[in-house]
Amino acid sequence: MNEKQRGILLVLSGPSGVGKGTVGKKLRASDDNISFSVSVTTRGMRDGEIPGVDYLYITEEEFAALEKEGKLLESALVHGYHYGTPEEPVDRQLAEGKDVLLEIDPQGAQTVIRKRPDCVSVFVLPPSWASLRSRLEGRGTETREQVETRLRNAREEVKTVPMYDYAIVNADGPEGIEKAFLSLKAIVESEKYRTSRYSGLIPEE
Amino acid sequence: MNEKQRGILLVLSGPSGVGKGTVGKKLRASDDNISFSVSVTTRGMRDGEIPGVDYLYITEEEFAALEKEGKLLESALVHGYHYGTPEEPVDRQLAEGKDVLLEIDPQGAQTVIRKRPDCVSVFVLPPSWASLRSRLEGRGTETREQVETRLRNAREEVKTVPMYDYAIVNADGPEGIEKAFLSLKAIVESEKYRTSRYSGLIPEE
Repeated sequence: MNEKQRGILLVLSGPSGVGKGTVGKKLRASDDNISFSVSVTTRGMRDGEIPGVDYLYITEEEFAALEKEGKLLESALVHGYHYGTPEEPVDRQLAEGKDVLLEIDPQGAQTVIRKRPDCVSVFVLPPSWASLRSRLEGRGTETREQVETRLRNAREEVKTVPMYDYAIVNADGPEGIEKAFLSLKAIVESEKYRTSRYSGLIPEE
Repeated sequence: MNEKQRGILLVLSGPSGVGKGTVGKKLRASDDNISFSVSVTTRGMRDGEIPGVDYLYITEEEFAALEKEGKLLESALVHGYHYGTPEEPVDRQLAEGKDVLLEIDPQGAQTVIRKRPDCVSVFVLPPSWASLRSRLEGRGTETREQVETRLRNAREEVKTVPMYDYAIVNADGPEGIEKAFLSLKAIVESEKYRTSRYSGLIPEE
């Protein structure tokens, strides 16, 4: 109702390989009011990634310092690497009325859902387990054993879906991505009409 | 996730003259899965209304019988006339997986919100009080005194907005109606992804 209202903290999560990055990227491209929160990570850069855009790549020591100083909204150890979301930029942008998108793994998402009950949380599901497997295999960044670990983790992660506000399916192919994107867009739009965020009064004139 | 899941009970309310009927009609026209719940009323038919489509017009005695037999999901006395929603058709359609739209006044809406905590409730706001006044005056179905009564009631009704899930503004002109309709459509879509409605499992294949 009020253009200057606080932004929405949007948590997009789901198993490794489900395509949350792809869906999130489409959302960001479609909406000028969404800021992306760049996570820090101790893992190495993947082909095609850009430092400061996809992640901030830091050392284990730097990560430990951020944690110790309480500067991370969430952090998680995923498949042997540390990931975290610096808190200050998130809060600054929310205060400016920007919506902030966090694309994070289910461990970190649970922390944010607990610490920020006003966040909007969305879990991205694969259309089938076979599909998730073929996406992980197709991406070719993990060994066979790592793929199996990710699939085992995914089966546990899916059990946390009831903690989230919404669950959407990212089906196979471009139509699947498009549908998941449109679902996410409807969620972001509708959340703006939540009366819990309603701060406006009806003007006399 | 699951096509056969139970439908959504959608409560659309707001002050007299705000245009909830117009916005609701556009939603119904755009979505085959939405059923409209035809209310009963003891008020007379207005020009352009169709019995059985806009309302079922019944006598005071018939209304009293329905109430006594517990056949109404909600009922309200609004500006001297009784209105009510027969419960059985609503439940039948929800069970069939249809979404059911109730366009009801704020008194009745409060009853449904209380009795059916899983309903999705949307309050339609005017862009300004001056605008609501001119809509009521323009419709020409009420005396000057009745317009004043409706405006006084509207100021009380707006205080119940926090009870609703969502609030949308129906601004002036066709663009206003279009925007309110699209807001409502986003709400209905996003509610389908609520994890509280999520019943599906991820298939193996």
